Amino acid sequence: MKKAFFLLVACLIFIDAQAQKIQSPNGNVALQFALTDKGEPTYQLQFKGRDVVRTSHLGLELARDRHASKGMAETDLLDGFVVKDTKTLTFDETWTPVWGETRTIRNHYNELAVTLQQPQANREIIIRFRVYDDGMGLRYEFPQQQDLNYFIIKEEKTEFQMADDHMAWWITGDYDTQEYPIQTSRLSEIRDRIHRDMLKRGQKYPEGSEERMYSAVVWDNASMNPVESTVQTSLQMKSPDGLYINLHEAACIDYATMHLTLGSDNRTFTSHLTPDATGMKGYMQTPCQSPWRTVIVSDDARDMLSSNLILNLNEPCALDDTSWIHPTKYCGVWWEMIVGRSSWNYTDEFPSVKIDQIDWQKAKPNGRHAANTATVKRYIDFAAENGLDQVLVEGWNIGWEDWANRWKQDVFDFVTPYPDFDIAELNRYAHSKGVKLMMHHETSSAANNYERHLEKAYTLMNRYGYDAVKSGYVGDIIPRGDHHYSQSMNNHYLYCIKEAAKHHIMVNAHEAVRPTGLCRTYPNLVGNESARGTEYEAFGGSKPDHTVILPFTRLQGGPMDYTPGILETQLNTWSDNTSYVRSTLVGQLALYVTMYSPLQMAADLPENYAKYMDAFQFIRDVACDWDDSRYLEAEPGDYITVARKAKNSDNWFIGCKADENGHRSMLKLDFLDKGKKYECTIYADGKTAHYKDNPKDYTITKRTVKQGDVLRLTAAPGGGYAIALKVKK
Amino acid sequence: MKKAFFLLVACLIFIDAQAQKIQSPNGNVALQFALTDKGEPTYQLQFKGRDVVRTSHLGLELARDRHASKGMAETDLLDGFVVKDTKTLTFDETWTPVWGETRTIRNHYNELAVTLQQPQANREIIIRFRVYDDGMGLRYEFPQQQDLNYFIIKEEKTEFQMADDHMAWWITGDYDTQEYPIQTSRLSEIRDRIHRDMLKRGQKYPEGSEERMYSAVVWDNASMNPVESTVQTSLQMKSPDGLYINLHEAACIDYATMHLTLGSDNRTFTSHLTPDATGMKGYMQTPCQSPWRTVIVSDDARDMLSSNLILNLNEPCALDDTSWIHPTKYCGVWWEMIVGRSSWNYTDEFPSVKIDQIDWQKAKPNGRHAANTATVKRYIDFAAENGLDQVLVEGWNIGWEDWANRWKQDVFDFVTPYPDFDIAELNRYAHSKGVKLMMHHETSSAANNYERHLEKAYTLMNRYGYDAVKSGYVGDIIPRGDHHYSQSMNNHYLYCIKEAAKHHIMVNAHEAVRPTGLCRTYPNLVGNESARGTEYEAFGGSKPDHTVILPFTRLQGGPMDYTPGILETQLNTWSDNTSYVRSTLVGQLALYVTMYSPLQMAADLPENYAKYMDAFQFIRDVACDWDDSRYLEAEPGDYITVARKAKNSDNWFIGCKADENGHRSMLKLDFLDKGKKYECTIYADGKTAHYKDNPKDYTITKRTVKQGDVLRLTAAPGGGYAIALKVKK
Repeated sequence: MKKAFFLLVACLIFIDAQAQKIQSPNGNVALQFALTDKGEPTYQLQFKGRDVVRTSHLGLELARDRHASKGMAETDLLDGFVVKDTKTLTFDETWTPVWGETRTIRNHYNELAVTLQQPQANREIIIRFRVYDDGMGLRYEFPQQQDLNYFIIKEEKTEFQMADDHMAWWITGDYDTQEYPIQTSRLSEIRDRIHRDMLKRGQKYPEGSEERMYSAVVWDNASMNPVESTVQTSLQMKSPDGLYINLHEAACIDYATMHLTLGSDNRTFTSHLTPDATGMKGYMQTPCQSPWRTVIVSDDARDMLSSNLILNLNEPCALDDTSWIHPTKYCGVWWEMIVGRSSWNYTDEFPSVKIDQIDWQKAKPNGRHAANTATVKRYIDFAAENGLDQVLVEGWNIGWEDWANRWKQDVFDFVTPYPDFDIAELNRYAHSKGVKLMMHHETSSAANNYERHLEKAYTLMNRYGYDAVKSGYVGDIIPRGDHHYSQSMNNHYLYCIKEAAKHHIMVNAHEAVRPTGLCRTYPNLVGNESARGTEYEAFGGSKPDHTVILPFTRLQGGPMDYTPGILETQLNTWSDNTSYVRSTLVGQLALYVTMYSPLQMAADLPENYAKYMDAFQFIRDVACDWDDSRYLEAEPGDYITVARKAKNSDNWFIGCKADENGHRSMLKLDFLDKGKKYECTIYADGKTAHYKDNPKDYTITKRTVKQGDVLRLTAAPGGGYAIALKVKK
Repeated sequence: MKKAFFLLVACLIFIDAQAQKIQSPNGNVALQFALTDKGEPTYQLQFKGRDVVRTSHLGLELARDRHASKGMAETDLLDGFVVKDTKTLTFDETWTPVWGETRTIRNHYNELAVTLQQPQANREIIIRFRVYDDGMGLRYEFPQQQDLNYFIIKEEKTEFQMADDHMAWWITGDYDTQEYPIQTSRLSEIRDRIHRDMLKRGQKYPEGSEERMYSAVVWDNASMNPVESTVQTSLQMKSPDGLYINLHEAACIDYATMHLTLGSDNRTFTSHLTPDATGMKGYMQTPCQSPWRTVIVSDDARDMLSSNLILNLNEPCALDDTSWIHPTKYCGVWWEMIVGRSSWNYTDEFPSVKIDQIDWQKAKPNGRHAANTATVKRYIDFAAENGLDQVLVEGWNIGWEDWANRWKQDVFDFVTPYPDFDIAELNRYAHSKGVKLMMHHETSSAANNYERHLEKAYTLMNRYGYDAVKSGYVGDIIPRGDHHYSQSMNNHYLYCIKEAAKHHIMVNAHEAVRPTGLCRTYPNLVGNESARGTEYEAFGGSKPDHTVILPFTRLQGGPMDYTPGILETQLNTWSDNTSYVRSTLVGQLALYVTMYSPLQMAADLPENYAKYMDAFQFIRDVACDWDDSRYLEAEPGDYITVARKAKNSDNWFIGCKADENGHRSMLKLDFLDKGKKYECTIYADGKTAHYKDNPKDYTITKRTVKQGDVLRLTAAPGGGYAIALKVKK
C-alpha cells in the first residue's frame, strides 16, 4: 500500500515536470499532455474544470513482421519516448460547405503538436491535439524518416478513461455491421450485456418476437462479427453530473475504423481497430497519420447536435468543381420490396444464376418484379407531381435471383437491365417530366467485382443522365476474410467516391463504413446508411427512441439516408407484413427536420401517400439544405427539437421527435426575423395519438406568427411535430 | 486377422460388382472405376497391364458454412454414393493450335462418365474420365440441381496411389512460389527431406553458399509458404521397372491449384488445394467442375515430352480472332539489373516513395537506372540488327524505389514513365526500325491495384503499339492473406488474360500460377515463368540438370519464358556478381530448341553477344514456332534431344541438353525429307568444355546432310549441342 502510494506520487511529479497544457479559445476545454516515467504518452481533458478524460495512454502496438522496415520489428510505439519539440498554434477560419446545416462553419481551435522521439529506435512521431470550445481531436502523425518507413499496426492503444459510471447510448462493436438496436445503459452494464447476448448467438428467437430485432444486443445477420466488451463509435455518454461526452473519429482515410473496448474497470475505453483478413489492423507507409480521435463535450445536450468539430477536423474540399452536387429529395421502388409485397428478382425459375449464362429474355417472370417499366413510370409520375427530384429503382439489373449470403463473386454487372426494365425509355420519360432516376448498385459486398465493373457502371449512368447512386454492401466481404470496416475496405469506399466524382456522380453508400466527416473533403458523398435504418421497421421494428439517439451518435460523422416518411405505419393494412413503424405519422414528418441529410427519401408508396395528402404536403414543402439550424431542445434518447432556415430563403422548418414518453415543448420563436410575419403550418399528433395503437391521429393547423411568439406543443409517445414557417409577402 | 481378410474379400467382390472399365484407343491404358461398400468412388489405372495408379479414392470434403446451400452443411462428397448412370464415348479430332510444337494436334480418347447419386442428400455429381494412349484425365462435375447450388470445398480428396517407391523429380509444395531447385529422390525420401529443410527455414546460409540457392528444398524467399509432406505438380516419376508417370492438372479455371500430399505410406498422393485468406479451398456454384487431374504414362521417356494430353483436355480456342498473336523473339533491358550492374529504380533519394506525391522531374537520379532512353535505343538497334522482334524494358515506370517486400498497395500505376524514359520517342524509334517494345507490368503482387489500373495500362500499350506484356507477381499477395495459387488469384490471372485479349495483347505472366494448358483456350497467354528461371543463375545458380527436368515437369502445362542465351556465363568477367551459369555456352543455344516456347528471349547483353557473334548466329536463326517436333532422346534429369521443323519451312533445328554428366548421341536423320540436301551447322561443345571451368570452349562446323545420315555428337558436362539444318536450294 505504501509502495503504491509512493509510485503514484512519483508519477504525478514526473507528469507535472513534462506536462504540456493547452486550452480552447474560450477556455472551457483544457487539455494536458504528459509523459510517464517510462516515456509513455498520456493526456487528460477537462471541461469547465470537470474531468472528461482522466489520464489516458496513447500509442500503438506494432506487428513483428518481415514486411516492416528495419527496427520496426523490435519496438512498439508505446513507450521509451522523450519530448523533442512542442508547437502551439491558434487557428480561426470560416468556411462554406457545399451543403449542410448552416451556410458557413467556423473552425476555431488551439493546437498543440508534440514531437516525440524514441532515442533507441531513432524514430519520431508527432501527436497533434486540436482543442475546440466543444471538445478536442488528437491524432498520430508519422513523418517519413530513415528508420520509420513501413510498419504494421497490431493495435492502436488510444485510451479514453471516463471519470464516472456514465449513461451510454451504444451498439456492440462489430467489424461488419452497425445495424444494431441502440442500447441505453450505464458503462458498468455494457460488458455483461454484450457477453450475455453473445452466448445467445445463433439461438432461434420466437417467431415475430420483438426481442430479436428490437432489443437484442447482438444476433445473427447477413454479415456480423461482434466483439466482446467492445462498442462502436460515435458513442454518446452522459455523466451523472450532467456532462455530455461523445467519442468518435474524424477523417478516417487509409486506416481501419476504430471501435472502443471497455476495460474491466468499466471506465477506460481503448481503441480497437478493425482487422483485415490477416488479423492485422493497418499497413502503413510514412508519411502518414491516423484519423483524428474526437471527444465532443458540453454541459448542454444541444451542443452535441450543433457541433461541427468532426467536419472541421476533415480536410477542405478536394474537388475543384462542385456545381453538380445538389441536395435531393426522392422516392423509390423500394419499400414495397422491403415489406415483402414485391421482389427485386425477376424470375424464380432457377435455383441459382450465373448472370452471363442465362437467356434473360426467355427466363420465366415471377410476376412480382417491382422494377418494371409500368411501375417505375407510376413512381416517376408521382415524383413529378410532388416536386421530388429523383426516383430510386432497386432490382433493375440482372442478378437478384441469388445475390445475397452466398459469398458470390460475380453477382452483378451493374449495367444489364432485366427484360421488363426499359432503361432508355424510363430515363427519357423521367427527364421529360423534370425528374431523374437514381441508380442502384448493390455490390453484395463483392468489392473486387464492383471495382472491375465500376468504370462501365458509372459510364452507363452518365449516358442515361443518372447523377446519384445508392450503393450497397450486404453480406460478407469479397476479398473473402476481409471486413467491412478494415483499412482495405475503407480504401475501397473512398476509391469509389473519388471515381464517382470524376463522373460527376453523387454517392450514398449503404452498409459501408460509418462516416467520419469525409463529406467535407468529398461532398459528393451525400449520404450513408451505416446504422439501423427505416427498413428495420418492416423487420420487427426499432425502438421509439431510436431516432432521438441517432443524431447524437451515427449522425456525428455525416448524414444518414434514413428513408423516413412512412405514413402508413401499420404495414398489415396493405401487405402481409405484421410489423409496424414505432412512430406516429407526424413523427415521420418530423424526421425530415431532426435527421439532417441533404438526401431525403419519401419512402412510402404513392398509393399510401394518396391517403394522407394533407400530411404529405409537409414532405413536399420541407427543404433539405439549410442556411441555419438552431437546436432548441435535446436530450439523448428522449427528444430533439430543431429549427432550420431553408437555404437561400427566409422560410423556416421546425421538427420535434420524441421517444416513447412523448414530449411537451414551449418554443419561443426568437430566431425569426424581426418585423416579418410567417404563415405557420403545424402538423401535430392528435390528443390520443400513440405510435403503437393510434399512430394516424394528427392535426394540421395554420396561424400567423412573428419573432418572439411562443408555441406550446405536445408530441405523443413515439410522436413529434413538424412546422413550416413561410414568410408572408 | 480373420476379420480383416473377410472385409478385404467383401470389398473386392463389391468393387467387382460395381466396376466400370474403359481402355484407351490402342488398349495400352486401362482404367477401372468402382464404388467401395461404403459408396466411396475409387479408380485404378494400368499401362500395358502394369499398375500406374492402384485403387485410389475420389471425392471432396466440404466446409460446414452458412454460405453453402441447404444440405451442403451436413454431407461431404466422399461416400454414400450409388451409381445412377454411366456413359461412354469415343472422341477423335485433329485441331490446329495458334502456335505450338506441331502444326496439328490429335485429340483421341475414350470417355467414361459416371453419374453418382447420394440418395440421402439428394445430390448428384459426375466423375468424367478420358483415357488416352498416353494417360488419362479425370474431373468432377457438379450439375445444377435443387440441393446442390453453393458449396465450399474444404479439401479435394483425389488420391493417386503409386505402385512402388518411384524415383521422383519434385519441388516442395508451396502456396506462393515454384522457384525451387528441383529435387531428385525416391518417394520414400520426400517427406523427410521437406521436413528437414522446413526446420532450417530462416537459418542463415554461409555467404556465397551453393547450398542455399542451389540445393535447398525450402528456404526464405520474397513470398513462400511451403507445406510439409507436399509436392507441386507437374510431378515426374519413374518406376523401378521403367514406367514414366507424370501427375498434373489441366484447365484449372475458377479453382485453386492442386498440390499433392504424400501419405505416410510413401506411395499415396492426395490432392491438397491452395487456400485463400479464409483457409478454404474453393467457393463453388453449380453448374461447375474441377480441373482435370492428369496422369501421363509411358514406358518411353520421350512420350512424356511429346504428349498433348494436357492441351487436349483444355477447351478449344475462345478467341474469335487470333491473327494478332505471334511467336516472338526478344531481347531486353533486364539481365544487367538481375546481375546487379544497373538498377530498376531511378533515384535513391527517398527512403520510400508514394508515387503520386513525388516530383519525379526533380528527383535526383541515381546514375544506375537502366531503362533510360539512350540504353534502350542501344537495345533497339541490337534487336533490329539481329532479327529480334521486340525489346523488353523493365524499370521504365515510376515506383521501383520501394516496390518489393513491403506488401505495399499503391506501388505502381503502370502508365507513368521515369523522366529519363521517353516512351513516345522510344516507340517511334523502335517502330521505325521494325521492332516493338515489350511492356513490363510488375504488380508486386498487389493484384487489386493492378486491376484498378488495368484498362488504362492496356490502353497506353495500344496507343504506343506495344502488343505483348510481361507481368510479374513478386512478393506476398494483396488482398493480404491470399495466396498466389488460390481460386481467387487464379481468377485474377485469367481476368487479365481475357482483358488483354480484348486489347489484342499477348501475356507472359511471371510468378503467376503454373500453367495447365490454358494457352489452348486463350492463346494470347504466350508464356509464364512459374518455375526457377535463368535469373537464378545470377543468384547462386541452378543445378546443371535443371533444364533437363523442366520439360518433363513445368513445361507440361505450357511454355516457359526461361530467358536462355547467356553466353557470357561467368558473370564476374563483366560484373561484380560472383555467380555463374551452370551451362556451357553451347548448352545455352540448345535451350532454344529443347525448352519449347513461342516466346524466346536472347537474355544476355548486346556487348556480351558481340564477343560471340558466330555462336549468336544460332539464336538469330532458330525458329520459335514449329510444324513438327521429334523427341529423339530423353531421360529425366539426364538429357533431352529434340528435332523441330520450323513453321512453314523445310528447315529443321536440333537441340540437345545434358546434365552434369554430359551425353553422347548418335542421331539418325531419318526425319528429313527424302531427296533434299541440307546445310547442317553444328554448334558443339569443345573437347574440354565443362559448365564450371571451361564453358566457352565451343566449335561451329558445317557440312551437308540428307535423310538417313547419322550424326555422332557429344555434349560436355552441363553442355549440349545445337544444329541448324537448312534446305539447300
